[in-house]
Amino acid sequence: MDTEQGRRAAEEEIRDLVEARVQAVRSRDLNAAIAHHAPDVVAFDVVNPLQYLGADTVRERTQAWFALYPEGIGYEVRDLYVAAGEEVAFCHHLYRVTGTTSAGAQVDMWVRATVCFQKSDGVWKVVHDHESVPFDPETGKASMELKP
Amino acid sequence: MDTEQGRRAAEEEIRDLVEARVQAVRSRDLNAAIAHHAPDVVAFDVVNPLQYLGADTVRERTQAWFALYPEGIGYEVRDLYVAAGEEVAFCHHLYRVTGTTSAGAQVDMWVRATVCFQKSDGVWKVVHDHESVPFDPETGKASMELKP
Repeated sequence: MDTEQGRRAAEEEIRDLVEARVQAVRSRDLNAAIAHHAPDVVAFDVVNPLQYLGADTVRERTQAWFALYPEGIGYEVRDLYVAAGEEVAFCHHLYRVTGTTSAGAQVDMWVRATVCFQKSDGVWKVVHDHESVPFDPETGKASMELKP
Repeated sequence: MDTEQGRRAAEEEIRDLVEARVQAVRSRDLNAAIAHHAPDVVAFDVVNPLQYLGADTVRERTQAWFALYPEGIGYEVRDLYVAAGEEVAFCHHLYRVTGTTSAGAQVDMWVRATVCFQKSDGVWKVVHDHESVPFDPETGKASMELKP
């Protein structure tokens, strides 16, 4: 595997997982959205708290997120970068999330995402997921209006 | 290198780079703080904009950050997790940044950090750095008061 060909194959596997995530979010398929998470995943999410520990916690959080958008979630990925070795990989990208919340708020926000993977029994697992928007130090407000 | 011993050695190299970063920030040593960045690093920072592209941009941002704290920066890392393969590695951790800004503001904030590495000519380089705080969806404010 430790060849250019092997690296390209591993990168392709990670790209497939990102694409699967996009489809899972768009269809609000909770099982698919967390299908590749390691049991002890550490997630740093866009909103509070500081961290979500474990796949069960991430599942609850994802379920609550999906429920916020009864009419569906728009989810578009760009600037995807992937680096994959034999057993360790990461990717980062920007994504645009759009939709109307159950409270009637129109959301259209670009988010930064970094997802880290390790192979376990030959299968890639998400062991870490970091998603965020920056804030404006002048106002202390999260910057939800930035565009790449 | 693809042995348990090799993995442990690579993880130790990444831990050393994190420790070097801690020392560089504490001593506000700009050259040391960016010594291990790849020229084409992509950084998602705590504050605007959405992303910083390239080591020169990160250098300017780091310089501005250091200049904010004329009396020094406290920088404490905890919950460090490291995964390192032969040529790809990542780590994540929380850090507490403390200090008094030049404007007189007292800062004491926990930040989430994910740093991703690739080997280039046998040397680990930071190709991606994602640092953030979450925000409170009720207020839209960045959550600078959270504690792990």
